[in-house]
Amino acid sequence: MPFELILQNISKHINLTKEEQTFFVSLLHVKQVKRKHFILKEGEISKDSIFVTQGCLRGYTIDRDGSEHVLSFAPANWWIGDMYSLFTQQPGTMNIEALVDTDVLTLSRTDQEKLYKEVPTFERFFRIIIEKSLVSSQQRIIDNFSLTAEERYHKFCKRYPELIETVPQKQIASFIGITPEFLSKLRGRTHSGK
Amino acid sequence: MPFELILQNISKHINLTKEEQTFFVSLLHVKQVKRKHFILKEGEISKDSIFVTQGCLRGYTIDRDGSEHVLSFAPANWWIGDMYSLFTQQPGTMNIEALVDTDVLTLSRTDQEKLYKEVPTFERFFRIIIEKSLVSSQQRIIDNFSLTAEERYHKFCKRYPELIETVPQKQIASFIGITPEFLSKLRGRTHSGK
Repeated sequence: MPFELILQNISKHINLTKEEQTFFVSLLHVKQVKRKHFILKEGEISKDSIFVTQGCLRGYTIDRDGSEHVLSFAPANWWIGDMYSLFTQQPGTMNIEALVDTDVLTLSRTDQEKLYKEVPTFERFFRIIIEKSLVSSQQRIIDNFSLTAEERYHKFCKRYPELIETVPQKQIASFIGITPEFLSKLRGRTHSGK
Repeated sequence: MPFELILQNISKHINLTKEEQTFFVSLLHVKQVKRKHFILKEGEISKDSIFVTQGCLRGYTIDRDGSEHVLSFAPANWWIGDMYSLFTQQPGTMNIEALVDTDVLTLSRTDQEKLYKEVPTFERFFRIIIEKSLVSSQQRIIDNFSLTAEERYHKFCKRYPELIETVPQKQIASFIGITPEFLSKLRGRTHSGK
């Protein structure tokens, strides 16, 4: 049942009738993204909101020196997208890659507008989802100002417990904004302190 | 007419009947914030969405060393708030201060929920407004990775042209993430290059 998880995710915030659920599900596309393959590349115009049902995606940008900067991880039950490109329909700067074989559901921008028209309560759902993303994004800016690397690491562990053991260390380091060597030191310290 | 600007702001994204406009306006509170006074302080629970009709607010946090970090400016026709505190109803980390004598309209969280119930099309309005904030917030994270200080300064000038001459330089420097001295150098360079 590839739609069970997304319907649960939605039912946390809005109530849908059976007909509305059926209509919503009819707009979704099931896709598989093999490990190390991309669902979106820098320079492309993002057309879809993406919901992960299994596996894990990561979104990152590449700076002019060729270094990668991780913006977000999306394990199962998370939404991900290049917000700039999706909302402005301009070419984006984000790459979204599968860290492991990953199953996703996509909802195209056009179908999302159709959904808002037919089932306006989805405006509420996405308003709430986007509020949560905005809080995370602003909090990340604040954390970079005000928390030490160690505190940011502990916050990451709390936020993404399922990723700590599965995601390569250098990508966690990139998300937190530290070198992999420093992350390794932090992990040693945390471990020995237990 | 303190409500003309906010009704224009809203009419860019949704259409309201006269009755809906009247109902919306009845939920707003008119407030004045004197220069250097605060509409929200760190540790408080934010209760309101804030819309500036005249003047300018800035939102900032203070790190453990006592340094201020500017998160956002809100000149006339902009919305501002401590998103974390507003959405979670937990004490926030943001201070929102008037840079000049400022007039605002506030909409309480409770009245905003009432508004969603009575005029559901406001879900769409705030969904779109929050999408735009999310794009800015994520773009700021990406810019800090990938743009030089000079590029970030030019982007700021483009985004907030009305602030360049009115906001103290050290606050613009804080927003961009550079020292006031370096900003002064950049401005000199930009000016001499004209």
